[in-house]
Amino acid sequence: MKTELILIGDELLYGKTRDLNAFWLGPFLRERGLTLDKVTLIHDDEKEIHETLREAFKRVDIVFTSGGLGPTGDDLTKAALANYFGKELFISEEAKTIVKENYARFAREWKPEQNFYHQVPRDFLITSNPAGQAPGLAYISEGKGVFAAPGVPREFRAMIEKEYFPIIEKHFAGQLDKPLKKITLRTYGVPEEVIFFELCPGLWQKLEALGKLSSLPLATFGGVDIVLQVTAENYDLVLKEFQTLVNNSPLASHVWQWGDDEIPNLVLKKAIANKVTFAFAESCSGGLCSSRVTDIAGSSEAFKGGIICYDEEVKKNLLKVSEQTLNTHTVYSLECAEEMAKGLRQLLGVDYAISLTGIAGPSGGTEQNPVGTVYIGWSSKKNSGSERFALKGDRVTLKERFSQRALLTLLQKIEEKN
Amino acid sequence: MKTELILIGDELLYGKTRDLNAFWLGPFLRERGLTLDKVTLIHDDEKEIHETLREAFKRVDIVFTSGGLGPTGDDLTKAALANYFGKELFISEEAKTIVKENYARFAREWKPEQNFYHQVPRDFLITSNPAGQAPGLAYISEGKGVFAAPGVPREFRAMIEKEYFPIIEKHFAGQLDKPLKKITLRTYGVPEEVIFFELCPGLWQKLEALGKLSSLPLATFGGVDIVLQVTAENYDLVLKEFQTLVNNSPLASHVWQWGDDEIPNLVLKKAIANKVTFAFAESCSGGLCSSRVTDIAGSSEAFKGGIICYDEEVKKNLLKVSEQTLNTHTVYSLECAEEMAKGLRQLLGVDYAISLTGIAGPSGGTEQNPVGTVYIGWSSKKNSGSERFALKGDRVTLKERFSQRALLTLLQKIEEKN
Repeated sequence: MKTELILIGDELLYGKTRDLNAFWLGPFLRERGLTLDKVTLIHDDEKEIHETLREAFKRVDIVFTSGGLGPTGDDLTKAALANYFGKELFISEEAKTIVKENYARFAREWKPEQNFYHQVPRDFLITSNPAGQAPGLAYISEGKGVFAAPGVPREFRAMIEKEYFPIIEKHFAGQLDKPLKKITLRTYGVPEEVIFFELCPGLWQKLEALGKLSSLPLATFGGVDIVLQVTAENYDLVLKEFQTLVNNSPLASHVWQWGDDEIPNLVLKKAIANKVTFAFAESCSGGLCSSRVTDIAGSSEAFKGGIICYDEEVKKNLLKVSEQTLNTHTVYSLECAEEMAKGLRQLLGVDYAISLTGIAGPSGGTEQNPVGTVYIGWSSKKNSGSERFALKGDRVTLKERFSQRALLTLLQKIEEKN
Repeated sequence: MKTELILIGDELLYGKTRDLNAFWLGPFLRERGLTLDKVTLIHDDEKEIHETLREAFKRVDIVFTSGGLGPTGDDLTKAALANYFGKELFISEEAKTIVKENYARFAREWKPEQNFYHQVPRDFLITSNPAGQAPGLAYISEGKGVFAAPGVPREFRAMIEKEYFPIIEKHFAGQLDKPLKKITLRTYGVPEEVIFFELCPGLWQKLEALGKLSSLPLATFGGVDIVLQVTAENYDLVLKEFQTLVNNSPLASHVWQWGDDEIPNLVLKKAIANKVTFAFAESCSGGLCSSRVTDIAGSSEAFKGGIICYDEEVKKNLLKVSEQTLNTHTVYSLECAEEMAKGLRQLLGVDYAISLTGIAGPSGGTEQNPVGTVYIGWSSKKNSGSERFALKGDRVTLKERFSQRALLTLLQKIEEKN
């Protein structure tokens, strides 16, 4: 069953806010037998809201909106929806109760003169807001439904998941599709076109015969994800065939995962399963490895901490990188990376220490070590070493790629128990 | 002059990729006398591309597309555009030359059998790709233009800035509007509705009379940005009036900036101007403060490094938090935060040391210290101290808010020279 999403807000069109809701809604719906088929970003403008709704309802029966439900003058989604369906706005006792409860959940008191949250279009369904104050608004009529959610991602998600989806399941029962399941192959080290034109010519065509195929170069990585979507009953068979095709090809040595985990999650899973601890000594990545790992709940089980050694003094004093190494090889060297990792393992007493030193740019590059150069070191009880990589991108992209590459090294060391 | 953007790619609709291009394009155009007025995300599907183009050209004269120019089978923007305008695809010698140059810039050799980058729609303008391999494609006819850029953000930006905008300036000369300038007031500590309904009733109406107004709660902060857009010639006058209105209101003590800087940039600017250095001891923020600061080129001038003290042992051994503090007050305390900051300043020898200890959740909260509690400590030559904050959100949001709050503390200490 197809749906569309309308994102309402000037701030989205002039670059003040980055939308996160479309990104979340797609997979949420897909796992539940609906698809997200079009997303439109428009101004806080009643005419545009009406025009976009009219077009959307020509194509689909369910439309979500995001934004414009707040208390200020540019929040006009509620009035626009009321006018679209020819309904008046009125003071609703039901809405009052919900708003009071929403405020109480945040230990705040609501008074009707504070805002107009209790004013709602007649005949609309009024719902709670599990993560905010403004109540949810939905309208279903003649087999079509519009579901208006707040723009703040936390509130958008909670409202669609907790309030709207149960309503959709009830009102549109029997119309939902078979949910599709995703098979994701995650590779690194070879660009998209090299995979399909050089390493595995014909692979694209063979995979396309198995399901809905797409291929995705990862901006944060320099890797490629190959995604195949199939119905639940075909899943096992197709997965086996997909794996056979890849395992017998030169792509096999570039696979880092069959699955959907982001690399910090996978690192953490493996570390916890193997009961090992780890830490990072970060120079050019500036704390990003540590920050990405600590985004995950429960990371303290394996992640112990880290040193951000932006300044050379920190490398020397805390990580005990030798004067000689710094003088002979500079901080941008295999030697420095390895000593950083060894020093870190000593300092924090972890099973695996990973280090990064390199040049995120835009300045500081040399012919020998251009911007994008990174030296990644590792140290464990059994082993230590370092490797040099030449990556591309602007400063922020490079930081992401440095961290991704370092996490991949950590993953490999943990998997090899080396 | 109005424009629209069509984002083409299944991966955007099923949540594999987050669009960054709309976010960038809006302000880029606005500064150059164009506006971004609608953005549509659609599938890799020729029919949808045609339908969306047709609708867009009813409203505007310039349409940008993003995505679908790569070498794989799901990249069909080029063919869809050719068919839309009734043009055949042909092997272009001009395109061959451009593709060869694009590859050469990456020190790679291109062979025609590698892909179809040299196959282009007849009568289209073919441009270089300053940041990738696939050439740019534009078509202008009867006062309307379509500009097809790659989806990868780095390539999208480079192509629009370096290749397409100069073409637009030439072909649509005289049609570009007066660029609008933005006045941004950034506040913290009071929700949107409290500002406009309690602290400053009437402020919204007064500001609305001065220009195009919008108000934006910041998901990463718990702050509110109030944005007013005016023409360049009104800028000075309106800014003065806006500032007078706010400075004479209770909102004045909640302002942290008149301007558009993100807080890490502002911190860095002030630190460099005052010739001071700083560092972070991060527990619950897991390295995010350091990572955000090091996203900025030149940060090494003031940022020296940091300790990620996720484990209690790191707080004790490296930051010298006393056993007594840990036993009496636990790691979640004003005392621990202050000792962390003092220990860090000692360890790294910086002018300002900032520390964070708290609970990002989802587990670990108690009645006394629920999830979202953070203790922020500071230490300078003159002073040290700590403060407790109660923030809200899921784990990742809380990490962002913790870091934002800590950076705000650092900003205030640097500004007060305290």
